[in-house]
Amino acid sequence: MKIALCQINPIIGDIKGNKDKIINGYKRGIEQKADLVIFPELSLCGYPPLDLIEKEEFRIALSNASKEIAKTTNKIGLIFGSITEDYEDNIGTGIYNSALLCYEGEIKFIQNKTLLPNYDVFDEVRYFEPSKDVFIHEFNDEKLGISICEDIWNDDDYWKNRRYPIDPVKNLIKKGASLLINISASPYAYERREERYEMLSTLTASEQIPLAYVCCFGSQTDLVFDGASMCFNQNGQLVKLGNSFQEDFILFDTKMNYQEIEKVERSFEEEILDSLILGIKDYAGKTGFTKALIGLSGGIDSAIVTYLAVEAFGKENVFVVMMPSKYSSEGSIKDSEKLIENLGISSEMISVQPVFDEVLKMLNPLFEGTKENIAEENIQSRIRGLYLMAISNKFNYMLLTTGNKSEMAVGYATLYGDMSGALAVIGDVYKTDVYRLSKFINREKDIIPNEIIDKEPSAELRPDQRDQDSLPPYDFLDRILRMYLEEYKEINEITKELKDEETVRKVLKLVDLNEFKRKQAAPVIRVSTKAFGYGRRFPIVQRWNRNI
Amino acid sequence: MKIALCQINPIIGDIKGNKDKIINGYKRGIEQKADLVIFPELSLCGYPPLDLIEKEEFRIALSNASKEIAKTTNKIGLIFGSITEDYEDNIGTGIYNSALLCYEGEIKFIQNKTLLPNYDVFDEVRYFEPSKDVFIHEFNDEKLGISICEDIWNDDDYWKNRRYPIDPVKNLIKKGASLLINISASPYAYERREERYEMLSTLTASEQIPLAYVCCFGSQTDLVFDGASMCFNQNGQLVKLGNSFQEDFILFDTKMNYQEIEKVERSFEEEILDSLILGIKDYAGKTGFTKALIGLSGGIDSAIVTYLAVEAFGKENVFVVMMPSKYSSEGSIKDSEKLIENLGISSEMISVQPVFDEVLKMLNPLFEGTKENIAEENIQSRIRGLYLMAISNKFNYMLLTTGNKSEMAVGYATLYGDMSGALAVIGDVYKTDVYRLSKFINREKDIIPNEIIDKEPSAELRPDQRDQDSLPPYDFLDRILRMYLEEYKEINEITKELKDEETVRKVLKLVDLNEFKRKQAAPVIRVSTKAFGYGRRFPIVQRWNRNI
Repeated sequence: MKIALCQINPIIGDIKGNKDKIINGYKRGIEQKADLVIFPELSLCGYPPLDLIEKEEFRIALSNASKEIAKTTNKIGLIFGSITEDYEDNIGTGIYNSALLCYEGEIKFIQNKTLLPNYDVFDEVRYFEPSKDVFIHEFNDEKLGISICEDIWNDDDYWKNRRYPIDPVKNLIKKGASLLINISASPYAYERREERYEMLSTLTASEQIPLAYVCCFGSQTDLVFDGASMCFNQNGQLVKLGNSFQEDFILFDTKMNYQEIEKVERSFEEEILDSLILGIKDYAGKTGFTKALIGLSGGIDSAIVTYLAVEAFGKENVFVVMMPSKYSSEGSIKDSEKLIENLGISSEMISVQPVFDEVLKMLNPLFEGTKENIAEENIQSRIRGLYLMAISNKFNYMLLTTGNKSEMAVGYATLYGDMSGALAVIGDVYKTDVYRLSKFINREKDIIPNEIIDKEPSAELRPDQRDQDSLPPYDFLDRILRMYLEEYKEINEITKELKDEETVRKVLKLVDLNEFKRKQAAPVIRVSTKAFGYGRRFPIVQRWNRNI
Repeated sequence: MKIALCQINPIIGDIKGNKDKIINGYKRGIEQKADLVIFPELSLCGYPPLDLIEKEEFRIALSNASKEIAKTTNKIGLIFGSITEDYEDNIGTGIYNSALLCYEGEIKFIQNKTLLPNYDVFDEVRYFEPSKDVFIHEFNDEKLGISICEDIWNDDDYWKNRRYPIDPVKNLIKKGASLLINISASPYAYERREERYEMLSTLTASEQIPLAYVCCFGSQTDLVFDGASMCFNQNGQLVKLGNSFQEDFILFDTKMNYQEIEKVERSFEEEILDSLILGIKDYAGKTGFTKALIGLSGGIDSAIVTYLAVEAFGKENVFVVMMPSKYSSEGSIKDSEKLIENLGISSEMISVQPVFDEVLKMLNPLFEGTKENIAEENIQSRIRGLYLMAISNKFNYMLLTTGNKSEMAVGYATLYGDMSGALAVIGDVYKTDVYRLSKFINREKDIIPNEIIDKEPSAELRPDQRDQDSLPPYDFLDRILRMYLEEYKEINEITKELKDEETVRKVLKLVDLNEFKRKQAAPVIRVSTKAFGYGRRFPIVQRWNRNI
């Protein structure tokens, strides 16, 4: 059987646009002599549609569009993902996450999703009922075993601990499937693609069955989908691999002999940079922004975000503003100017000092006689935020925030100040990784000036301030954070490994106490398995942090 | 049997503090000659603990504290809620939401929760496994049928459509339960208590069985729990009702004849005001704030929030700031001063004008020749936010935001401006309800000056601005919003009922397009069945709004 995998980028809720993408992909499949054309999970509505699913008119629109798609089919098969309803027993939602197989003008077969992920960024039990059974559908000479994303992630040959007691894919195989189809929407995080490959290869090798696994690509607010659809032959060899972070159209002939593909993931630097650029590009493209705005401090975070914005928007569409105060070093301005020159972007310099002075004058009746503290530092950062938002509002720039994951973790950021913006581009990238990425960006020529990479990090909000006055060195901080945030370790385990209990305790407390800031943060582009935002849910008001 | 219901207010994660509350309540129960002392769902860790549950050290601390509680027991029974683990088969999380029955120094019996709510603000499937079965425990002369919150919300005598196929409470009754115990953490929304009463009364009447239903009270960030624990005799009569929005200790003797209680809910105004005051008080109390700060505009929203803050903190702990610009009317200042006098609070006036002028001067190189637009309006609002945050940071005031639900819905608010603050006090109260509540507050004497109630709403950010220039009249707007947000109706249904398709279409679009603002809003105190925040999850980047 000749299968065309259409690795498309749906827009959530854009049912008409997504329908056109599906119909066009199907036509292309016919032109290329495919027998079956397949599209990703929920490709008709985009993934994740969240509470849109709870709107009846939304589901009706999807049902109508599904029928319209089916009507365009001839004898060539078409599989796409959408939402279906079957409310027979008045129990539960009656709503399913489904794969629809169409041909000869009709929806011929529907397989609903059995395993509904409900962890991290996934909330599928909130919306869907699980399928009670799986069924084979005979098509041409094959017995198709169709499954949806998570359905294929519960193989007991691969996982020591499983999330679910049943394995729908094994059940399909038991029922005689000769070819597996899995339609997916699987968010990217570094090393995730490698894991998909290992797991799918184990399955197809041990069961001696070929698999076409089609994924969407594109970014949906904070989630990045990398595409990289995969086809395996019945020996568990990967024989087709879709583009990463790009649209693709892949032909997989199950009868052909292909050469095995052995490498599925590139370097950390290449993968993360591509993820972030796609994250910016798609947020803008899908909301209508065409230009980016960044506040340039002279530090490495705003430098790398500016580089990423240039990659996403083109240099003519990126505008940066330098906003020095009396605490800003001369070096910061010089370094920023060098970056501006290297990238060929336009810029403006606006001092915060006159407004800062005026604010202090106005607050003097209240502040007189008090000691300078965090209040004065935050005022400067908030004036910068105010300038940037004004420029963004005036000229319709998309303002990008520049805080990294280490800062967001410990709250080393000013709410309504440097946290202002539509998208937190590197909010899931640790400071030490920001350095790593910057060095990679400079691998052929200096783009980010070395002065920026080499200087000691400072917020420059008071005289001679250095990040290290308030925080442990970033390499140590990031080790603590990784263990706490990603590995779910707590004070005892972390201290056992890293020693320095006092510092560890302080960092953990800062992480927990700053939940209130992150609640009001811009969406963070997710590139790790545990990013701040939707997939990480902690109470703001809690005292576990005081117990640890 | 004599049952003591301890209607406590746990702090999330404060295992030691909650443990002490449980032990003290148990002692009080013994003093009062109770046979059994019962506490709410997850009373040992507070509800909802969210991702704290995923921390192993958190679960170990709970397990240890549970054993310590059990050790303090004698022959008097004690039931409290906590998390237990039973990871026998390497499938799923192995984590349960449990009721622990202790006596004679030991945990004698554990009943796990069967029905795990996973809708609106509930995510229990994310964390817990459902109990596979329910069991009776004989204690003294009774056969106890113990269930946890949602377990009792699936009665097919009461519900036409049910969420779950099984009914654990009916199963307990089938197994011979002579007395039902339900431990709950049920968030309040108006009319919710009435619903609980109806449902529990139907159950106990039709099954001829008494019930002790114990709830927590208190606010947890955005969720308000009203307490109001209920005891029913075997005729379905409510015979004991705990205090609303307060701690309580209730004795229920199943052998005694009590008079029936027929009214469980007070007026909308009384209930909502109590909810909001508790919401402010508990956020502050549990995070350590003792003083509130509000920006007073002269409008009704900031006036009512100031009144609520005075109720929560006492007048000596509330500080307000008036921040007029050249667009502020004289009336606004006069009206604010009258409110300040009525409430007896301290205040300061700080003009935004000099800073506004300075900002415009600094932005002039960029803005020169452009038309005044939303950018200039937002600058004023953001200077106010900046002042307030500076004062909050300097003196450790809790800044309260004053936007109402109607404004938050359509995005009639400035991000990082008037949206700045720790808690959105009336973010779940429609503008028309703000008027209703204000009139109620004034029922005996004028607290909120009538001038404030009577004046036409205006943001005063440009000359002669009125809300009605940008928005439909609030009574019409709120009708649209109620149908869209609470009743899940869409364009077709709403237009059919309200006519004026153009306005309806515009409002719905505004609601959807402003998801990005709400993503960065302060937590909203939830008083309706569908509040902005955790229980309402929509993609920021989506185009369903363009289809409608």
